[in-house]
Amino acid sequence: MDIKGYVIDMARRARAAARVLGGMDSGAKNRALGKMADALEGSIERLIVENAKDLEAGKAAGLNNAILDRLALNNTRIRQMAVGLREIAALPDPVGEITGIRRRPNGMQVGKMRVPIGVIGFIFESRPNVTADSAGLCLKAGNAVILKGGSEAINSNKAIIAILREAAVSENFPPDAIGFIDVTDRQAVMELLKLDDYIDVIIPRGGEGLIRAVTENSRIPVLKHFKGVCHVYVDGKADLKMASDICFNAKVQRPGTCNAMETMLVDREISPVFLPEMLARLKAAGVRIKGCVETRAVDPAVEPASPTDYHTEYLDLAMNCRVVGGMDEAMDHIAEFGSLHTETIVTGDYARAMRFLREVDSSAVMVNASTRLNDGFEFGLGAEIGIATTKLHARGPMGLEELTSLKFIVLGSGQLRM
Amino acid sequence: MDIKGYVIDMARRARAAARVLGGMDSGAKNRALGKMADALEGSIERLIVENAKDLEAGKAAGLNNAILDRLALNNTRIRQMAVGLREIAALPDPVGEITGIRRRPNGMQVGKMRVPIGVIGFIFESRPNVTADSAGLCLKAGNAVILKGGSEAINSNKAIIAILREAAVSENFPPDAIGFIDVTDRQAVMELLKLDDYIDVIIPRGGEGLIRAVTENSRIPVLKHFKGVCHVYVDGKADLKMASDICFNAKVQRPGTCNAMETMLVDREISPVFLPEMLARLKAAGVRIKGCVETRAVDPAVEPASPTDYHTEYLDLAMNCRVVGGMDEAMDHIAEFGSLHTETIVTGDYARAMRFLREVDSSAVMVNASTRLNDGFEFGLGAEIGIATTKLHARGPMGLEELTSLKFIVLGSGQLRM
Repeated sequence: MDIKGYVIDMARRARAAARVLGGMDSGAKNRALGKMADALEGSIERLIVENAKDLEAGKAAGLNNAILDRLALNNTRIRQMAVGLREIAALPDPVGEITGIRRRPNGMQVGKMRVPIGVIGFIFESRPNVTADSAGLCLKAGNAVILKGGSEAINSNKAIIAILREAAVSENFPPDAIGFIDVTDRQAVMELLKLDDYIDVIIPRGGEGLIRAVTENSRIPVLKHFKGVCHVYVDGKADLKMASDICFNAKVQRPGTCNAMETMLVDREISPVFLPEMLARLKAAGVRIKGCVETRAVDPAVEPASPTDYHTEYLDLAMNCRVVGGMDEAMDHIAEFGSLHTETIVTGDYARAMRFLREVDSSAVMVNASTRLNDGFEFGLGAEIGIATTKLHARGPMGLEELTSLKFIVLGSGQLRM
Repeated sequence: MDIKGYVIDMARRARAAARVLGGMDSGAKNRALGKMADALEGSIERLIVENAKDLEAGKAAGLNNAILDRLALNNTRIRQMAVGLREIAALPDPVGEITGIRRRPNGMQVGKMRVPIGVIGFIFESRPNVTADSAGLCLKAGNAVILKGGSEAINSNKAIIAILREAAVSENFPPDAIGFIDVTDRQAVMELLKLDDYIDVIIPRGGEGLIRAVTENSRIPVLKHFKGVCHVYVDGKADLKMASDICFNAKVQRPGTCNAMETMLVDREISPVFLPEMLARLKAAGVRIKGCVETRAVDPAVEPASPTDYHTEYLDLAMNCRVVGGMDEAMDHIAEFGSLHTETIVTGDYARAMRFLREVDSSAVMVNASTRLNDGFEFGLGAEIGIATTKLHARGPMGLEELTSLKFIVLGSGQLRM
């Protein structure tokens, strides 16, 4: 198979589809999303049959139960995918918004218009529901998309895409608006990353290996959705009950997510009072703890934490704990080991809260709230394609608006440059 | 010389400086900019001596007079650089702006805060005044910068940077806030482009060769300031006097700039009336014209235009002319040959004007105005670091605001994820 030709052809057709899609009005897009939701609900049996092939291959390949569980589709999960698409249809359309129009001294009016980005390449290692969500979000924002999912979900994804595409086409959308790379050969991704004439942005969502391979090889701008090494700093002026609840929630409520806490930083001023109870509470919930010398002095059962541990996203009931001499040391630690994802200070001190907000450089910086709240729904953006950890274009949860771009528009009446 | 070690060391120190710079208040930044302006004005003789070395080397290397003229510094030009820095000091500081704070159902307040990007790598092939402008803009936006100028200006740039840095340091800025790669070896740029742990964005401003080398080799996000293949479409419903003035201004007023018109697209409906006079007016101003068959039927002296010509940024009194069958053909031409820079429609038809604004995908899309007006000062942004032709983060003139980033902030009172 000519993989290079296959990918170039898909990208070229996506570019042409993007021009059509950019001119579609909200009504047409919402009707298509509704049809796509109906089509998923009408194909539950077919999807479960295709998904069973992936599950069988996964078992044969020795995937663990957690991964197999994430991969599995059932009646409820398929209905949830349909609900997700209907929720996207209900969101306001960001395309066409005009802002900041001002009249210049020469009489021309200058402002900005929100437009689709164009063609988005979305590369993910994740559950099949991400396939439907991301196709729906890209379509609503007026973008053509080329999806590349993990090889372990290839049959499920192929079926989902075929169903979504057929529904979109029945509403007069170009079939190439939703592209899907249905070969699992790694070369396909490498070829895709070269096509900066056709693709406007690559969004990789996954682990260290995927992100590194994409950033090293892409000629196309990349919006990384990288790991979350998130911190909670418990300040000397914290309400200790609130601090305990926030740390517990940030680690335990759902440890397998990118916005869960990986390292707890505790001000030396209160560590003798705070740490014994906190460590006991976490351990009682089954959390494995690594820590600094002072943490281990409180609880000798704590394993020693290495710099590698401080860089680690555990995605599990495991974490680091470090005692620090105040907020400057905490911010130094975050600057060195953080992944620009989500950081929280727990404090009752106004000046420290304001300094933390200003100086910590992460997609979301919080005062007195759980890191788990960094999320598109919790922030009121609606569905998200993921949480961006790059500093350009979009930081944090990427919803519909972040899948668009702003261009300048000028309303003139014959103005010339003098 | 260990170029790799030299570049890594500079980038690491810039990263440390960026954390200091991010905490500087507007007053301190403005005082430093004032000192930098004073220092340039106090070093006119020294700068002219250093500049003479570049001019001599340039002459020996056979650079043409246009390039030598752009390279030359004199009393007036150095004073203009100082004025530019004082204008940047007078602009409002974008850092710290908080927008869109909303209360969520659980009581937490969510909004965005504008913060510096961090460390910016700026690679340019241009006049020495760009060195002072870009250093001033980056400092005001709270970013550390690593500059890499063209080798033909190495002595002038070295002197400018030394003067600016000394002035900034006298106002307690870290010396590493303004980095400068003072080796001309190309390897230095290649090493720089790998340092995604230290540098947040690369801004290349220059020709095709530079842009291509940077995008193919960078692991760091790139905001291209690429060529401008700008179009004016003269619609069948245009005021022909206005159309003639706009086309003439867009090509002739300053042809060596990226926002000058390269191709004029003329609706067949009015080409028989419009073209003869227009071509004569352009030719009288010394413009060399290439054109399609229909253009050449009007004026047989017009040379035939090839697809390569339609892709060309002439930066000179030279252009293409093509007759099209209405606005759809014009927009197809722009989609195929444009560089996403600046496009204008001249029309009196409301629906066509609105369609052009919506559907043409460029950094600035205009109705009835000269492409030459796509400029930071004309748009009211103040000084600009260049005109971005990427679709992410910033399109069009990049001023202070575009040199910053938005992060989410959360003001909580103990909120947890349920």
